[in-house]
Amino acid sequence: MATTAMPMANIAKDTDMSSIQRFDVGPRLSEMAVHNGVCYLAGQVAADGSQDITGQTQQVLAAIDALLARAGSSKHKLLRVEIILKDLADFPAMNAVWEAWLPAGCAPPRATIQANLAKPEWRVEMVVTAAL
Amino acid sequence: MATTAMPMANIAKDTDMSSIQRFDVGPRLSEMAVHNGVCYLAGQVAADGSQDITGQTQQVLAAIDALLARAGSSKHKLLRVEIILKDLADFPAMNAVWEAWLPAGCAPPRATIQANLAKPEWRVEMVVTAAL
Amino acid sequence: MATTAMPMANIAKDTDMSSIQRFDVGPRLSEMAVHNGVCYLAGQVAADGSQDITGQTQQVLAAIDALLARAGSSKHKLLRVEIILKDLADFPAMNAVWEAWLPAGCAPPRATIQANLAKPEWRVEMVVTAAL
Repeated sequence: MATTAMPMANIAKDTDMSSIQRFDVGPRLSEMAVHNGVCYLAGQVAADGSQDITGQTQQVLAAIDALLARAGSSKHKLLRVEIILKDLADFPAMNAVWEAWLPAGCAPPRATIQANLAKPEWRVEMVVTAAL
Repeated sequence: MATTAMPMANIAKDTDMSSIQRFDVGPRLSEMAVHNGVCYLAGQVAADGSQDITGQTQQVLAAIDALLARAGSSKHKLLRVEIILKDLADFPAMNAVWEAWLPAGCAPPRATIQANLAKPEWRVEMVVTAAL
Repeated sequence: MATTAMPMANIAKDTDMSSIQRFDVGPRLSEMAVHNGVCYLAGQVAADGSQDITGQTQQVLAAIDALLARAGSSKHKLLRVEIILKDLADFPAMNAVWEAWLPAGCAPPRATIQANLAKPEWRVEMVVTAAL
């Protein structure tokens, strides 16, 4: 897009398609989109679904750390995390890993529900929104 | 809209209530709100719930296309899509319609869960966030 | 952070960790984060889970009102509300309280699903995104 030197040109650019930065784009989904200072992550699940809730939560949080780092963000800047558990009996063990991972003073708004996930072995999925 | 030449006037307007644009406002919900360059869509479901997952997914995606177009956005600018399936057995058929619909290089972050929806005939609901 | 009088200092601040304002921060979660003109609330549930769906919905909406007021926002500025019901039979009673609460012309985009919540007595949870 041709732009001028006027400030309005920068504002217009914010509504341009090129203002969305995508990470790991595939035919079905990408892992993260960054737009206007906000990171929208895909629901993160365990790469190794054979692990128990502790291991799966650790994997999910490590995946979140890695994605946020690529965008220049971090777990200090979480805006909201929606957590889906396959089994609510896993709630305490998931929370233990979660609380150990969180930096002091940075706990984000959360919402947790129980639902089945796309693969039967997945016990936890986290959907993260974070600031850049 | 009448505007002045002062940049601050535009910035202040962004935190004003009038900066939210709503579409199809009813007593219970509206179908879309646009604020600060981001489109928040209501969960889209099939108008004709008698169709199978392929037909319902096509209806949902057409509804998303139509709403985004009214805001001046499009499926090229999706920031995240949360998908709720009534039955995970519908996952492959939903994905086939989804992938055929997506423009190359524009796949957004996604999260998919299994849950019952407000009407028993609904097999899929999609909750879209998109850039303007 | 030391800043200069240059406009760029304000822009940079928007991507600084301090640009996130958190409310009721605990070791596990906070109740609200405000960033870049948007309020992200934690999933709100009833403090008194012994009440029926009408009472629980009233409690949830009062909690939302209180949080939004602390940020300087209100139910006039909702951008999207995601509703989780433990039992879809509660849908009409929840909607009656919801519609009585909403100001005319301000109904936000919604999505409703059925899922179990973190405590068995909770019948409804609402996840709110609002403009400042």
